[in-house]
Amino acid sequence: MPFHASPRFPMGFRCAATHCGIKAEGEGRDLSLFVSEVPATAAAVFTRNQVPGAPVLVGREIIRGGRLQAVVINSRVSNVGRGDEGIDRARRMGRATAEALGIDSALVLMSSTGVIGVPLPIDKIEGALPELAASLQDDPMVGAEGIMTTDTHPKAVSLSVGEATITVVAKGSGMIEPNMATMLVYGFTDAKMEPDVLDAVLRRVVDDTFNMLSVDSDTSTSDSCAVLANGLAGPVEEAGFERGLRDAFTRITEMLARDGEGASTLLRVTVSGAASRGDARKVAKSLVNSPLVKTMVYGGDPNVGRILMAVGKCFDVRVDPRAIEADLCGVRVLSGGLRVDFDEAGVRRLLKGDPVDLDVDLGVGEAGARAWGCDLTHGYIDENAAYYST
Amino acid sequence: MPFHASPRFPMGFRCAATHCGIKAEGEGRDLSLFVSEVPATAAAVFTRNQVPGAPVLVGREIIRGGRLQAVVINSRVSNVGRGDEGIDRARRMGRATAEALGIDSALVLMSSTGVIGVPLPIDKIEGALPELAASLQDDPMVGAEGIMTTDTHPKAVSLSVGEATITVVAKGSGMIEPNMATMLVYGFTDAKMEPDVLDAVLRRVVDDTFNMLSVDSDTSTSDSCAVLANGLAGPVEEAGFERGLRDAFTRITEMLARDGEGASTLLRVTVSGAASRGDARKVAKSLVNSPLVKTMVYGGDPNVGRILMAVGKCFDVRVDPRAIEADLCGVRVLSGGLRVDFDEAGVRRLLKGDPVDLDVDLGVGEAGARAWGCDLTHGYIDENAAYYST
Repeated sequence: MPFHASPRFPMGFRCAATHCGIKAEGEGRDLSLFVSEVPATAAAVFTRNQVPGAPVLVGREIIRGGRLQAVVINSRVSNVGRGDEGIDRARRMGRATAEALGIDSALVLMSSTGVIGVPLPIDKIEGALPELAASLQDDPMVGAEGIMTTDTHPKAVSLSVGEATITVVAKGSGMIEPNMATMLVYGFTDAKMEPDVLDAVLRRVVDDTFNMLSVDSDTSTSDSCAVLANGLAGPVEEAGFERGLRDAFTRITEMLARDGEGASTLLRVTVSGAASRGDARKVAKSLVNSPLVKTMVYGGDPNVGRILMAVGKCFDVRVDPRAIEADLCGVRVLSGGLRVDFDEAGVRRLLKGDPVDLDVDLGVGEAGARAWGCDLTHGYIDENAAYYST
Repeated sequence: MPFHASPRFPMGFRCAATHCGIKAEGEGRDLSLFVSEVPATAAAVFTRNQVPGAPVLVGREIIRGGRLQAVVINSRVSNVGRGDEGIDRARRMGRATAEALGIDSALVLMSSTGVIGVPLPIDKIEGALPELAASLQDDPMVGAEGIMTTDTHPKAVSLSVGEATITVVAKGSGMIEPNMATMLVYGFTDAKMEPDVLDAVLRRVVDDTFNMLSVDSDTSTSDSCAVLANGLAGPVEEAGFERGLRDAFTRITEMLARDGEGASTLLRVTVSGAASRGDARKVAKSLVNSPLVKTMVYGGDPNVGRILMAVGKCFDVRVDPRAIEADLCGVRVLSGGLRVDFDEAGVRRLLKGDPVDLDVDLGVGEAGARAWGCDLTHGYIDENAAYYST
């Protein structure tokens, strides 16, 4: 489905963002608020990391109600690894938002993203919320900017599904292999949806998009993905809604991969001919996560034996070494499990483009999957060897 | 057990190495030969990669006989992904060695390491073997040098077990997460061993050493580890032999990790308090493989929340977030799942040392495991973004 040239909100949604002082002066906004003018049906998925942040623990309770009216997010400090203090501060963040908006605190989801293990500056957040709640406006990019950490640009898309609109706002660029949902993603729609339908659609779409994204194989403690449907545009056909959400999440997945820490290109891996969907997903993830495949893409050097290696290291996947075919940037490089003669200079040029497509046919079945990632570069090392730690 | 100051061979073993022309002039030796003067009891383990090299496929057949007298290894070209041609050339490499030595070709194990997918220059190998077989000498470091690829130095150790000697020669620095054996490791001993005992000891020791080593989470198509016991020193006690082999393999594991591509330090992760040995191994591997932990070590910035993240992303391991303790370079940094106040400047200094020890107590059981790896640096990117590809 076509995306709007500039992202815009569905009916009834607005947002605001400010600098409340968690980031240093000059580092940009650090607190965002998204609000629906009426309570919305809601669904959410969270990280599978076993040491989740306090907002994830509290958020899982809140989403059980199936309704949300606001989402409040701070960046720079993740409120993870802080025990009871973290839980208490996450709840305070929700309560302060509810008070500032004059709504029930059971309708407020809170998220935090940033450094793990340091105390959430809750006083600064509480102090900023009244003014933030009074400054709601119509541009989703403003809210997207307030949730950035190492992102190089704010991320939002929107599209129309019949009379309704779907808008998705996201952040994320490192510690990304969600296995449930990506870093922080919020979907807003004025479509009218039943809670159980919304939940099922969300899980299906996330499984094929954010759960197939990996920047560095590290799974964050804070990954959260929520969708709010306020119903102001009336009901829409479920299949059309799912298609729209899938298109929007796919676009966001590609944005997140391309903006992976230090990345110079999006790496899109498509596996076909697998014995099962599970096999296809494992091989696609293995390829998109292999440091040797990722550095091959960065270096632009078609060392295509590494593709065989990354397929073969999926020990429990059905593989026939002599059936593997692979195309790199649309050029056949492996056939019958063997390297074929190909135009190396041409592939070197194509590898400098964006995206880089790697298509692998296992030749043993009918199942397929796609995974998204990025190259591994000096920028990743720079960014993560010296990340603000305290 | 104490290692010999300079590695030396057990009785009856010798080696030779030469430049036969697979590497360019000036790049060092590329063909090594290790020989016992009498046939030896032998055991070997190979990569679990499903797209193994031809020498691995042929080697699995040969080792079924339980006896070896020689090992021949070339570097620079791995003879992987070449189909029937690869199998044929691996066999020719074994036959040429047997002819040059005047022994049965069923007693020759061959290995190849280097680029995947290009033809093995078998003519150069065959041409060089007669002279190589005539130049056997007593220094294992000579043979170690001939099997290097991206290694920065040759790797060999030896120690005494009673009257017997164990000598281990190895190479490897990238594409290392063996899951069976490390890149290429050859053990030579004059101890007298029964084939089934040798096989069982080898598998136990490899499981705790090379199978717990990871430079970059990529599993090579060529990993091979063989041990030859020629019996010239007579029988030794099994437990003592196993201890000796374990010490030697542990030392080699640390050498391989420290010489990981681009690595500036050895990272040694010890997990205790796990519910099972399997859990402990998974957590140790997760920590040693996490790009964010590895870049933390490289940067010397104790962003210790990443330790919680890498524990928590082991989804199927029993974890109690509030029981996790961690020491970094001997300094307590996490307690009860929370970051504790610690001397950050002191830890920064310690992180610049070698090795870097990370000890994690899960606090839920009695099992433990150790894994070895290295930091992730600009050097790794440089080395792998522009590796000789054709």
